[in-house]
Amino acid sequence: MSRYPEPTLAEVADWWTTGVTRIAPGEVEHRGVPVADIIGERDLVSAMYFLVLGEWPCTAHRDLLEAALVGSMDHGPQAPSIAVARMAATCGIGINNAMASAVNTLGDSHGGAAQQCVELLNDVVGYAEREGVTIDDATEVVVAIWRERSPYLPGFGHRFHPIDPRRGPLLGLVEAAVADRHVAGRHLTAALRVEAILAAQRTPVPMNIDGATAVIYAELGIAPELSRGFFVLSRSIGILAHAWEERSGGRRNKGPMPPAILPTYRPSAPIPDVSAPPAAP
Amino acid sequence: MSRYPEPTLAEVADWWTTGVTRIAPGEVEHRGVPVADIIGERDLVSAMYFLVLGEWPCTAHRDLLEAALVGSMDHGPQAPSIAVARMAATCGIGINNAMASAVNTLGDSHGGAAQQCVELLNDVVGYAEREGVTIDDATEVVVAIWRERSPYLPGFGHRFHPIDPRRGPLLGLVEAAVADRHVAGRHLTAALRVEAILAAQRTPVPMNIDGATAVIYAELGIAPELSRGFFVLSRSIGILAHAWEERSGGRRNKGPMPPAILPTYRPSAPIPDVSAPPAAP
Amino acid sequence: MSRYPEPTLAEVADWWTTGVTRIAPGEVEHRGVPVADIIGERDLVSAMYFLVLGEWPCTAHRDLLEAALVGSMDHGPQAPSIAVARMAATCGIGINNAMASAVNTLGDSHGGAAQQCVELLNDVVGYAEREGVTIDDATEVVVAIWRERSPYLPGFGHRFHPIDPRRGPLLGLVEAAVADRHVAGRHLTAALRVEAILAAQRTPVPMNIDGATAVIYAELGIAPELSRGFFVLSRSIGILAHAWEERSGGRRNKGPMPPAILPTYRPSAPIPDVSAPPAAP
Amino acid sequence: MSRYPEPTLAEVADWWTTGVTRIAPGEVEHRGVPVADIIGERDLVSAMYFLVLGEWPCTAHRDLLEAALVGSMDHGPQAPSIAVARMAATCGIGINNAMASAVNTLGDSHGGAAQQCVELLNDVVGYAEREGVTIDDATEVVVAIWRERSPYLPGFGHRFHPIDPRRGPLLGLVEAAVADRHVAGRHLTAALRVEAILAAQRTPVPMNIDGATAVIYAELGIAPELSRGFFVLSRSIGILAHAWEERSGGRRNKGPMPPAILPTYRPSAPIPDVSAPPAAP
Repeated sequence: MSRYPEPTLAEVADWWTTGVTRIAPGEVEHRGVPVADIIGERDLVSAMYFLVLGEWPCTAHRDLLEAALVGSMDHGPQAPSIAVARMAATCGIGINNAMASAVNTLGDSHGGAAQQCVELLNDVVGYAEREGVTIDDATEVVVAIWRERSPYLPGFGHRFHPIDPRRGPLLGLVEAAVADRHVAGRHLTAALRVEAILAAQRTPVPMNIDGATAVIYAELGIAPELSRGFFVLSRSIGILAHAWEERSGGRRNKGPMPPAILPTYRPSAPIPDVSAPPAAP
Repeated sequence: MSRYPEPTLAEVADWWTTGVTRIAPGEVEHRGVPVADIIGERDLVSAMYFLVLGEWPCTAHRDLLEAALVGSMDHGPQAPSIAVARMAATCGIGINNAMASAVNTLGDSHGGAAQQCVELLNDVVGYAEREGVTIDDATEVVVAIWRERSPYLPGFGHRFHPIDPRRGPLLGLVEAAVADRHVAGRHLTAALRVEAILAAQRTPVPMNIDGATAVIYAELGIAPELSRGFFVLSRSIGILAHAWEERSGGRRNKGPMPPAILPTYRPSAPIPDVSAPPAAP
Repeated sequence: MSRYPEPTLAEVADWWTTGVTRIAPGEVEHRGVPVADIIGERDLVSAMYFLVLGEWPCTAHRDLLEAALVGSMDHGPQAPSIAVARMAATCGIGINNAMASAVNTLGDSHGGAAQQCVELLNDVVGYAEREGVTIDDATEVVVAIWRERSPYLPGFGHRFHPIDPRRGPLLGLVEAAVADRHVAGRHLTAALRVEAILAAQRTPVPMNIDGATAVIYAELGIAPELSRGFFVLSRSIGILAHAWEERSGGRRNKGPMPPAILPTYRPSAPIPDVSAPPAAP
Repeated sequence: MSRYPEPTLAEVADWWTTGVTRIAPGEVEHRGVPVADIIGERDLVSAMYFLVLGEWPCTAHRDLLEAALVGSMDHGPQAPSIAVARMAATCGIGINNAMASAVNTLGDSHGGAAQQCVELLNDVVGYAEREGVTIDDATEVVVAIWRERSPYLPGFGHRFHPIDPRRGPLLGLVEAAVADRHVAGRHLTAALRVEAILAAQRTPVPMNIDGATAVIYAELGIAPELSRGFFVLSRSIGILAHAWEERSGGRRNKGPMPPAILPTYRPSAPIPDVSAPPAAP
């Protein structure tokens, strides 16, 4: 009756194969390590790195990841994710649901800049390696290619901050790690070169939090999409803080503006009917 | 203190400008029509079309949209969206939350085929118009271009059904609407031509539900992304039916397999450390 | 190794047992009816009722459900769900994801009033039947009990509308259905009696959209929680209309206010440390 | 036109008042502390505690919270949340969307046990304080009250583990913190007493991960609902690990079982029509 050969029970178990966690009655192991050897023995950032990436980070790498996670926890309620968390928290749903509604908005435009910036920096380093040129020269080429697609480079410029106050501390940590040979520093060089290229323009657009954390993720060799995953873990903390603050306030069904203000109504033209049948012959 | 000029209250109201609904104390109007003139006066599909697109559909167009919505309500629990709805419904969250978890999975791979197929069919019709060739000839060209990107064409082939039982009834309705000159039929012609091209291959891959509904959306002039929106409305019905059925069963924390079956544990290689510092010179 | 007996493949299939949809290669049946007998043959509201509830509605019941669904599609962007949909639509996520973030907020406070009002009306009718008293007398008793829990009765009063313009048309349809003996009218009587009790107070709080649709759901015998499910289907239409309108506007990362306005910062007292250890003895 | 007095711009800004984060051009402060004083200066768990609760934890409290977060990261794909994360990750949506679908399922049944167990333990300690009795005596009373509502006590018993391997290490840390007078130990005493009461029954139901983490949250004075928030942060790590693993595998539209297995179809009785009109008089 099916197009498929008859399955076996082993195939059912295999359908959900994982290398992350093994359980047996009385046993929980993460990537081969009993959970009892992790609880109280390992800090959260190391445990997170190990669970997701499958190896323990060295202290220097752990510290860099930790700084990136601490640095992007929150930027206040003007961010759509935080506004969503706060409004959702007033709607009579669980705090996990409010958090999910908010995490869901960390998309390509809102949470994707770090991911895209990692791609940009990887492009530069990859080009330099392939072509045997310096990072600086590779950056010139790759930036030109990226700008053909869009005038905006992910991770640079901020619609609010002339200088992002999180840029300096994060880059300072990366510079120290480069000096100590904990990371190679090529992605940092690339990012600083991008910044210099942009600074030579009329309006400088310095690196923002997404760019600065992207330098860390890229130096750690974390894949672009996974970088967004780590950002989600970080911003989830701010989301929780705001959901909880709003919850404690007791308001119900909070809208985006005080209720005395009504949204402007402006009729829009009907969508033209592009489906009209052809004229009779 | 801000980079922006001082705003006005009108700008606050304008920030949320909409042409969909106007409210005033005692009044609710959808696109200029008092809600009292819609309730009991208009069927759900017409009201939906009007609210989203800003004009009333003719009966023939309404019927086509209705058929597309009725046709894609559900395909059972092997679809990730439905499995998610059912598992979520057992986790102690609201039925709206269970529905949201499921709707959230109707992404590019799961709910996006209709949207992509509308793009394909629009490409064909656009090419034919621009180049002054027949739909059949345009289809040959456009299919060749699309297949350079991917061997799979969205809306064609099904991993389960040799022939999708929803294809025939839906295309039959479109054919009748073409015969009655309610729609132009160019997207239908394009879709049938795609099917013919694929049928000439070793393994025919006939049009599936996404392709058949895409023909309807495209003939109605509905934008590709909005087509996914309508699909979401349709599949939400199946999502509700399954969430409700599961809810009525009373199970708690339903996993993907009977609890006696454990996922296979297979250690994965650690992610290679691409961030190693360069060797000392 | 497991606490469970060895499962069989049949038990795996049974784990996902459903009565909603049966598929086989080339076949899709909803509750025993081939999908080809539904597409083009049945309207969306009947198909929805059938898929969820397992039987076809009579025309009168279908019309009432349709009116409830049409009546609660949208109330504009001051509703958190709609604001969430619009902000989410600017964040670079799929339109299904924007819809999911919004549907997720239709919780106990935002989408739950109809559900709770169905419970209230069912309580009245159940009390009247059990105690052999009139609906009017039962309403007095049940309202008194409910108001001990909360001064607010779900489905009555609106923070914006003195009179909800959707109340009249919806109740008019129910009254006609009662006159024609299509529904019993007991829940309608109960709801009107609640309204009369509240009107005798200083500030009348007439029935709102949630109350009016609750009368329909309750008259149709639809379970309270499922009433919320139907409301979700209805409001999903407004959610799509607004997500699409916002999407068409092209804004990115829309916050809740124009960016020139910053949220007020007001330090909150630290949370008291209730975990302090006891003083030494 | 509105029921509300004319608002002011200050009221608009006040609508989004927060004590979590203040931004100004070039400045980001969390609860009054410049972000540059946190990045690289504070570990993630302290920063999280500070952002959410408004004060810095002492080292001992930080370590306890860290252990709770590390201990509940993951339990494998049989948990609905993890299965949802993995299936969602194959549907062509962003990794943040896959994570949101999963976080959304951490509801009362799946993620709520720790929250409920904190309530239980708080009930015991509150009773002991109010009535001036020992924690042990208070536990007897409170457990009896809770079991009238449900035979199951949140945080005790596991359908898979006879003994939860995470219980011992977590309680060991709490015991050490009590010995060092970092926490009072009353909630620990209560939890151990609950366990002893249950052990005296035919089938012992020892404390599970939710109970053990609840002891930590309760000893730290973290509110019950906020405990679920912290659990969400912890489990989000496992959700990311699994979403990422699945993503790396490249499967599309993963259902809950291998596609060769079809869900069992079992017709369900139509829902009885409880809405039938009364018989004619």
